[in-house]
Amino acid sequence: MPLIRSWIAAANAPGCPFPLNNLPLGVFTHPNRYGARCGVAIGDQILDATGLESAGLLRLSDRPVLAAPSWNALMACGPRAWGDLRAQLTTLLQADAPERASVEPFLHPMDAADLHLPFSVAEYTDFYASLHHATNVGTMFRGAENALPPNWLHIPIGYNGRASSVVVSGTDIRRPWGQLKGRDTQTPHFAPSARFDLELELGAIVGQPSQGPITVAEADDMIFGYVLLNDWSARDIQAWEYQPLGPFQAKSTATTLSPWIVMRAALEPFRVAAPRRVLPLLPHLADCGPMHYDIALDVVLEAEGRPPVTISRTNARELYYSAAQQLAHHTTSGCLMRVGDLLGSGTISGPQAGNRGSLLELSWGGETPIDIGGVSRSFLEDGDTVTLRGAAMADEYQIGFGPCSGRVLPALKDPYAR
Amino acid sequence: MPLIRSWIAAANAPGCPFPLNNLPLGVFTHPNRYGARCGVAIGDQILDATGLESAGLLRLSDRPVLAAPSWNALMACGPRAWGDLRAQLTTLLQADAPERASVEPFLHPMDAADLHLPFSVAEYTDFYASLHHATNVGTMFRGAENALPPNWLHIPIGYNGRASSVVVSGTDIRRPWGQLKGRDTQTPHFAPSARFDLELELGAIVGQPSQGPITVAEADDMIFGYVLLNDWSARDIQAWEYQPLGPFQAKSTATTLSPWIVMRAALEPFRVAAPRRVLPLLPHLADCGPMHYDIALDVVLEAEGRPPVTISRTNARELYYSAAQQLAHHTTSGCLMRVGDLLGSGTISGPQAGNRGSLLELSWGGETPIDIGGVSRSFLEDGDTVTLRGAAMADEYQIGFGPCSGRVLPALKDPYAR
Repeated sequence: MPLIRSWIAAANAPGCPFPLNNLPLGVFTHPNRYGARCGVAIGDQILDATGLESAGLLRLSDRPVLAAPSWNALMACGPRAWGDLRAQLTTLLQADAPERASVEPFLHPMDAADLHLPFSVAEYTDFYASLHHATNVGTMFRGAENALPPNWLHIPIGYNGRASSVVVSGTDIRRPWGQLKGRDTQTPHFAPSARFDLELELGAIVGQPSQGPITVAEADDMIFGYVLLNDWSARDIQAWEYQPLGPFQAKSTATTLSPWIVMRAALEPFRVAAPRRVLPLLPHLADCGPMHYDIALDVVLEAEGRPPVTISRTNARELYYSAAQQLAHHTTSGCLMRVGDLLGSGTISGPQAGNRGSLLELSWGGETPIDIGGVSRSFLEDGDTVTLRGAAMADEYQIGFGPCSGRVLPALKDPYAR
Repeated sequence: MPLIRSWIAAANAPGCPFPLNNLPLGVFTHPNRYGARCGVAIGDQILDATGLESAGLLRLSDRPVLAAPSWNALMACGPRAWGDLRAQLTTLLQADAPERASVEPFLHPMDAADLHLPFSVAEYTDFYASLHHATNVGTMFRGAENALPPNWLHIPIGYNGRASSVVVSGTDIRRPWGQLKGRDTQTPHFAPSARFDLELELGAIVGQPSQGPITVAEADDMIFGYVLLNDWSARDIQAWEYQPLGPFQAKSTATTLSPWIVMRAALEPFRVAAPRRVLPLLPHLADCGPMHYDIALDVVLEAEGRPPVTISRTNARELYYSAAQQLAHHTTSGCLMRVGDLLGSGTISGPQAGNRGSLLELSWGGETPIDIGGVSRSFLEDGDTVTLRGAAMADEYQIGFGPCSGRVLPALKDPYAR
């Protein structure tokens, strides 16, 4: 897996998250300069893809597909256009490219740009696909012997989330109010969540529509790319509301995405086989090739005025079900999938205590608070900033995701004050 | 509640579902004549509202809001424009209106038109708000003593549904495949659903956006109108998948809406108080006026080649939670609501066996199949047509919803054949 060298020096530097092999897709504004447009991260720069297309330096379809500040129109063009984009960008940006002089005016320093959601989310589905996470949570709630629900090893358990909750990294997150019930009281009360949590997930973006059931292989072909995803969760709201129809307001406050879509093609070299199957999967969900990814992930927690502390390290290969299997299952009932559907992987936890992807697991439901450099945490406190980080590591380069970050603001004092 | 008389004779006829008091909003095409446009049902005609606006006979905003075939743009204009629309239509259509000659060319016979979804569904949430339904289902699944989950009398239980599943009345519904597990087998199998069901619901359409928690009174003001809603449900898929995160593929095949949005204003005379509260609601969800509706509802089942049979009669006033309470609860966590969000009431069942809004309840889980004119039904068979009907009845007129209908097609033989 060699590095593809670029004439942009920073893209060739060891440890750069955005080498020419990556080419992740975002939407950016430059203060006092541009309205939102499509951009590509390369080294320490953003390449103005909307401008390049408009200047005739990128040709992806017979009409412009990057005119709106969203990558949905390119997704809708299909896999051939996805490949064309990467091929044309690679030609323009590789070392010694003769187009360098005409491309240079379309580069902008990344650190001066504001980043926005890179696509319009059609619908958002969240899964529950890490065996370690499901076992940890199940053990806390139902005891070790009943930890896994009977269906868990047969289907990717998922629920419909709330697309309107999706925000880009950097958006502040207001601690929610909700109906809560203590263990020792008869009746619930309405109060700010006291057990507000993060969830480390990978998000898969559906780039093509489907009608009717599709195979796992077809599903894999429909996936446009991946982002990091923090599924903010109010555990106390969840505990009271989730029976019998699942999480609802506990998960509707916010869902943060990293700002760059890492295209599936950039992750091809990092495909790995599924974990060992505890029970065989039915044929329509069976593994048909390596569809998991070796992506190192971690969670950084920064209390206000204190240095950041890495509280979890894990890997996307810990997922039991691949996004392709989740998407295939999603279509079994004939459910229509649309361009821009977002699938959250579910919290990614590994086998050890230090690999857990939520505070619920890290503090074991609050029983064993963790230390973050001298202060302790069971759940998130006001002023805490959570940052998810991810990168697929090759010998010569890495495919970085860019941070997925959000700071917790105090709950509104009176949510109904006007 | 007097009838407002119109110069369209059919609108004044006793039993007409679309008198001038109603003015429900749809989207229609006329074969060989028009692309889809906004229309209003009046008597046996559809008034071409897009054409009226374009001709300057309707003025709802400083720019056209009915140019696209959807009522979302009008919704976004807010309650004042909603009132303007009704006032202007009433002026144009009432008996002796001087505008009659200029309006007449915009009328088209309803029976020659095709009807489409009247709005673009942003997101779809489904609730579980009938005490009789929740008690029936809970009794079947958990026994009479544990029928109601502990949260049920304190919050409107709901889950996020799948907006892409929403179709207009008249759309055929393909029986879904799914992962199923029999009681006596160890492992699941993949097969067509054998327990495919209907659910009689009312759908509320959110016409204004919100950020942050809103009160019940504010929520009521945000509701644009109502439709009938059939939440097709595969009970065998649901039974296997729904723990712990709720219904998913069981409810993703299709959700059928009646084609006409009955505006909230048309239902004002039919407001009724909430049912007796078994337990007091917390202040943020408490009743603050009559926000339920007296709407007679029934379910008609028609087996292929047989006459239709009414299998259930109930009323929307049987709902324990109003749509306003559901919407207020929906926003407690800070969940953003958007124009075009759809809230399903949950299955509406009344106290008697003949008032049940699903076959699951009518046949008591298949134990006591019902008779539909010489053939029996536990769940839906291929070729069955389900029609929901609804009307609010005044002495001199009724506010009809138009039928919400769908026919069950056989499952695909091999869902993966290409």
